[in-house]
Amino acid sequence: MSGRVYLDWNATAPLRPEARAAMIAAMDVVGNPSSVHAEGRAAKGVIERAREEIAAAFGATGGRIVFTSGATEAAALALAGRGLHAAPIEHPCVLAHVTADLPVDGQGQVHPTDPAVTALQWANSETGILQSPPPGVAVVDFVQAFGKLPIAFDWTGARMGLLSAHKIGGPKGVGALVLAEGEEVAPLLRGGGQELGSRAGTENVVGIAGFAAAAKAAAEDLARGVWEEVAERRDRLEEMLRDAAPEAIVIGADAPRLPNTLALAVPGWKGETQVMQMDLAGFAVSAGSACSSGKVRRSAVLSAMGFDEVTAASAIRISLGPATREEEIAAFARAWSLGYKRWRERGAKRTGQGAAGPASVRHDRQDVTAAPGGVGERKEATR
Amino acid sequence: MSGRVYLDWNATAPLRPEARAAMIAAMDVVGNPSSVHAEGRAAKGVIERAREEIAAAFGATGGRIVFTSGATEAAALALAGRGLHAAPIEHPCVLAHVTADLPVDGQGQVHPTDPAVTALQWANSETGILQSPPPGVAVVDFVQAFGKLPIAFDWTGARMGLLSAHKIGGPKGVGALVLAEGEEVAPLLRGGGQELGSRAGTENVVGIAGFAAAAKAAAEDLARGVWEEVAERRDRLEEMLRDAAPEAIVIGADAPRLPNTLALAVPGWKGETQVMQMDLAGFAVSAGSACSSGKVRRSAVLSAMGFDEVTAASAIRISLGPATREEEIAAFARAWSLGYKRWRERGAKRTGQGAAGPASVRHDRQDVTAAPGGVGERKEATR
Repeated sequence: MSGRVYLDWNATAPLRPEARAAMIAAMDVVGNPSSVHAEGRAAKGVIERAREEIAAAFGATGGRIVFTSGATEAAALALAGRGLHAAPIEHPCVLAHVTADLPVDGQGQVHPTDPAVTALQWANSETGILQSPPPGVAVVDFVQAFGKLPIAFDWTGARMGLLSAHKIGGPKGVGALVLAEGEEVAPLLRGGGQELGSRAGTENVVGIAGFAAAAKAAAEDLARGVWEEVAERRDRLEEMLRDAAPEAIVIGADAPRLPNTLALAVPGWKGETQVMQMDLAGFAVSAGSACSSGKVRRSAVLSAMGFDEVTAASAIRISLGPATREEEIAAFARAWSLGYKRWRERGAKRTGQGAAGPASVRHDRQDVTAAPGGVGERKEATR
Repeated sequence: MSGRVYLDWNATAPLRPEARAAMIAAMDVVGNPSSVHAEGRAAKGVIERAREEIAAAFGATGGRIVFTSGATEAAALALAGRGLHAAPIEHPCVLAHVTADLPVDGQGQVHPTDPAVTALQWANSETGILQSPPPGVAVVDFVQAFGKLPIAFDWTGARMGLLSAHKIGGPKGVGALVLAEGEEVAPLLRGGGQELGSRAGTENVVGIAGFAAAAKAAAEDLARGVWEEVAERRDRLEEMLRDAAPEAIVIGADAPRLPNTLALAVPGWKGETQVMQMDLAGFAVSAGSACSSGKVRRSAVLSAMGFDEVTAASAIRISLGPATREEEIAAFARAWSLGYKRWRERGAKRTGQGAAGPASVRHDRQDVTAAPGGVGERKEATR
């Protein structure tokens, strides 16, 4: 992957060296954590130390950490059968279990009516837009916020929280449900008595060890102020792209946002096409969230925020990390600006006008397909 | 853990070097498997190659492999809400979802009346006793059998199969549900479209890579005949323990068994006490299955087979692996025989008889607690 530039940290962050080392060390721990002998107790020790480290990193020492196979399982454990309400901008793993009837304003803000029956994200994965969950929210999705913002679970007043290891430089396939004191969940996975009966199944010892090491390192990074530098770099990138494409819309420009996320739409230049063109040029970015990018053609998040179909199909997400270098964002800005220029030229040629600006694009579904960016579209994306 | 002897391979097998190497290699794969860019496709490639390798190792090329966080999740995915029937000797993660009304005979054999509504294990984790599932069984638990016996899923006629990575030398926290052609499951975890919609959530890429490498290595081991050597060693161990303790009952002695498993009961000498004594002496064995050993005092499997309470509370499981050496089983036999001799002596002293043989133990719950083996019992085990 030499020469590639990875700008899709919200989809998944590269594994931190600390996580890698902890995982390799945990590979030598032979026992089953449920076994009572020395080998079993050693494996149990890895898990319990990890639980303490994550609780400390997340300011959740008053609560309880239940390890899961990721945020999707944590969401199911927290939400299934509870009939909670949420806004349509939540992650699909939350939307699968809620009534998505809470309104979203043009700046992506959700205003819950009753926190006790609400699921609410702290940060949106596609736009980076932050919420200010009031105390007492039933389930808060901290997946994108944890590690990037100074959050102590105990102080948020959330009753339950969702975490994912791989968004903070831990391994993929591990996460946690955090329970405030007094909260209980009915187990989704039943059988053995693991996780105090909340989640059966032999634990992912190696993954959990990596999660804890990543959480600890992420908390240290945060304290050192690395995300402030990331935010500066993101802001410079935003400026460069806006300079190149004056009609580009920065999603949530006037809202509080994650320090690393830039969601940008050039109406008519399809997000999928941009992603493919940038990929060929050596840059990894995304259109929508990773788990839905293979199947949807426009962003449900942007639609919920009131953007028209063309705009909602024309957004890309560029998400930076602490390792993202200044020259990488400069190189991306050059490549993207070139792509934008070519798209404009193709549009101009097709319409016979000097330029195919937003005004020349009819904002309906048919026109999206016929828009200049449609050239070079991938087959699987058109299904 | 130098000087320790690990004889609890059915609880979990040590990580194979091939799995370790594959996991470390997969740590460098940055992308989210759901991302469409090069980094995402590389991660997806790891998973799809793993799927092919496991299908090949398990003879399931006609079916479909759905990766899960382990056999417990695979069982829930296969069984939840289906109202299937099973015998009470199944693993707790299966029993959580079935009606346990199928009878078990004294040799641990289950005779399903209607395979299409039955869940049945291929091999019992506590006793090693094998079943002969008729074709068409709805869900077969292959967890303990896979890798130790030559089984091709496509030839078994099973409609679904459960697999766990860590029982074959892969990592803990990964497993699979295998679906015969035409079988579908309603997803338990919903959200993203991963695993063709059968199981949402970002995949455990590192764990899946380790699972596949372990499956491949296990299939090669099996073909080389390593388990025949293991069976010989197990048989020698069985002989040594029987010689030392003439009243010892080998569970399933007349039934077909896994090559590596020895379940042995000395009525009155509590299994938990034996496990603790052997642990102190440097040997890891278990009483019951690992996931239940922290909470139950007698084996539900042995009870279902018709053993009385005392015997069901007096069994240990010794499970060997390909790495188990001859001198290790000899050392275990010596330590166990010494423990047995001391237990007999304590019993003789307490009862004032020459020996506390099975005949002197009243077979009811109270007497189990008062039996000679009760000395030195751990506090948490008596809850």
